[in-house]
Amino acid sequence: MNVLVVNCGSSSLKYQVLNMETESVLAIGICERIGIDGSFIKHTTEGQETVKIPCEFHTHKEALEKMIEMITTGTTACVSSIDEIDAVGHRIVHGGEKFTDSVVITDEVIKAIEDCCDLAPLHNPANLTGIRACEELMPGVPMVAVFDTAFHQTMPKEAFMYAIPQEYYKKHGVRKYGFHGTSHKYVSQKAAEMIGKPVEEAKIIVCHLGNGASVCAVKNGESVETSMGFTPLAGLVMGTRSGDIDPAIIPFLMEKEGMSAKEVDAMLNKKSGVLALSEMGSDFREIEDGVVAGDEASRFTMDAFQHRLVSYIGAYAALMNGVDAICFAGGLGENNAIMREEVANMLTWLGVEIDVEKNKCRGVERDLSAENAKVRMLLVPTNEELMIARDAKRLLHK
Amino acid sequence: MNVLVVNCGSSSLKYQVLNMETESVLAIGICERIGIDGSFIKHTTEGQETVKIPCEFHTHKEALEKMIEMITTGTTACVSSIDEIDAVGHRIVHGGEKFTDSVVITDEVIKAIEDCCDLAPLHNPANLTGIRACEELMPGVPMVAVFDTAFHQTMPKEAFMYAIPQEYYKKHGVRKYGFHGTSHKYVSQKAAEMIGKPVEEAKIIVCHLGNGASVCAVKNGESVETSMGFTPLAGLVMGTRSGDIDPAIIPFLMEKEGMSAKEVDAMLNKKSGVLALSEMGSDFREIEDGVVAGDEASRFTMDAFQHRLVSYIGAYAALMNGVDAICFAGGLGENNAIMREEVANMLTWLGVEIDVEKNKCRGVERDLSAENAKVRMLLVPTNEELMIARDAKRLLHK
Repeated sequence: MNVLVVNCGSSSLKYQVLNMETESVLAIGICERIGIDGSFIKHTTEGQETVKIPCEFHTHKEALEKMIEMITTGTTACVSSIDEIDAVGHRIVHGGEKFTDSVVITDEVIKAIEDCCDLAPLHNPANLTGIRACEELMPGVPMVAVFDTAFHQTMPKEAFMYAIPQEYYKKHGVRKYGFHGTSHKYVSQKAAEMIGKPVEEAKIIVCHLGNGASVCAVKNGESVETSMGFTPLAGLVMGTRSGDIDPAIIPFLMEKEGMSAKEVDAMLNKKSGVLALSEMGSDFREIEDGVVAGDEASRFTMDAFQHRLVSYIGAYAALMNGVDAICFAGGLGENNAIMREEVANMLTWLGVEIDVEKNKCRGVERDLSAENAKVRMLLVPTNEELMIARDAKRLLHK
Repeated sequence: MNVLVVNCGSSSLKYQVLNMETESVLAIGICERIGIDGSFIKHTTEGQETVKIPCEFHTHKEALEKMIEMITTGTTACVSSIDEIDAVGHRIVHGGEKFTDSVVITDEVIKAIEDCCDLAPLHNPANLTGIRACEELMPGVPMVAVFDTAFHQTMPKEAFMYAIPQEYYKKHGVRKYGFHGTSHKYVSQKAAEMIGKPVEEAKIIVCHLGNGASVCAVKNGESVETSMGFTPLAGLVMGTRSGDIDPAIIPFLMEKEGMSAKEVDAMLNKKSGVLALSEMGSDFREIEDGVVAGDEASRFTMDAFQHRLVSYIGAYAALMNGVDAICFAGGLGENNAIMREEVANMLTWLGVEIDVEKNKCRGVERDLSAENAKVRMLLVPTNEELMIARDAKRLLHK
């Protein structure tokens, strides 16, 4: 069984083709700047060099057409025809309260995803564009929707309800949803394997740290709390997002600075986080370099990031009344050994003990702990595409 | 040495007269509804019945005049003349970054408190009214200002800076200040005594739980983190305040509900918290009764309150890399034994173990822990007035 995994953004289309017998990646690529000048496709077929081809993509459909050409014809082909694609898995950002698991896409499902557009006005419409393009170009191929929010639907009410008048929940669905669910699920399952404990009996904290970042408490295989909220703004310090702030800052700044609510929202989402703390940029690799070079602003940024992260780890250990493993995933989590070591050293009271030598690595699946550490610290490269393809296989084989 | 402690709100004036040789309260009272119809004074002299007298108070000065009459003349007198009041201690809500400790009040200090009015527009002006009334009616009596924020000025930069553009900090002082500092300081010092450890070597978490509520991490005698923020809105679920929410909810509701920023702010401060969760009221005593009676909304409210509280306790244990004692103070913390027991049972992993029999109490200073508990759980009735009077004594005896 071959599965095409599609992740559509507003002007991009990421894809992977996976062979689900071996779980190997046959091809991977991205179409960028769709509908904008200078669009191109970057494609890698297994075992070959990456090719980057300028193409004029006016729509996601045109991008998908080019992708189909790349995976079926010429030297970049990884299947002999589109008929060898048995299913498509779509990453969908917001499933609201309707979707507690991945689902086979039907007209009703499309309608329901449309209904969630209010909750994710930037993401769900783009995701739907991808579904429609696939419907047109690959008619009859079954499709599955995999939601970033679904894994967190197990959160108890005391975790997901905000302490604001309940009419806003009833009328507009204002509650905590959480995101990165596919990654948190994948990493927590893998972590349970690595520590040799059934996931149904394990207490795992997953730190998915990328440009967007969130922490999740996974108890007995279920998400019981996560740091992102109604939107992906809440929680950790991120690349350009503030994470948690005193909400009263918003009306204060609106009055003092004459900003509109939308301007404050944009400031919190796009001009905050690592970018604002470092006053350099949002890329954590530069912060890491700065820390090594003794740069003060980088050190402060790292400290603030870790302060928030360590708070969440402690909070989630408390909410689960203990923890077996703390996992690092995402670009920053998988690559920044200094951050991992410093965080581990702040958590010795919890029974965390890192093996400094084992920690000298990037992007590999590894238990970073000293032999007798009571709480394991794991590096678990995430793989959302594989998780999406697995869900497609699971749901279509039923 | 006798100290008069004054705490002025916008329409109230609370006071205590303390003998600082014995640290005993000679008189205590409150003037309410100042400038509003139906104003009155409620006064208790040590060892006597409480009296409540309707009085027409148009201003705080008139209220103070009445108070001076009560403490100096007739059957309610506790001193023979106003000359026996050696100092006045004023509770001031916001000291910004200027005040890291209590201070003897001078013209410069009054100016600096005025400068902080922008940060506490409801509280500082009222506090200043009290200072001015005392200046007029008790000329020459030295006065001391004790700030709610001062104790938290030891927080490190990574704790107090929000991850938003730093211009807002530089221009408007947008940062975390924290409140209830006088209480957190008092309780943490008392807790160190109770566990027999010098406060300079102790890791203490103080849960000040009243209608307003905050948690503080006190490491080696210094506040290193606290749950309230730029304003008292952030952090725990409170009587009518939401505590932490995803800040993106504010612009969302402004758009969907056509609310102004001020309306959202008022909703978050006055119609949220326990009131919104329970849909009954903001008084936690009713919630406790509801829980005992098996009421579902009460149970949910209690769960949500505890969920947030346990998160903060875990977070602060993590930030201090351990904890020696967790203290409960404030009306709710001192009186709600069910809440304390349930929170303790969520923290067994941390080494907390409560003695259910010892916990059957209200408002007494007591170690509630089982004999061998690794982390002590303490009930420490707070006493902000005593702390204010002690600061007055300390600063004026210099």
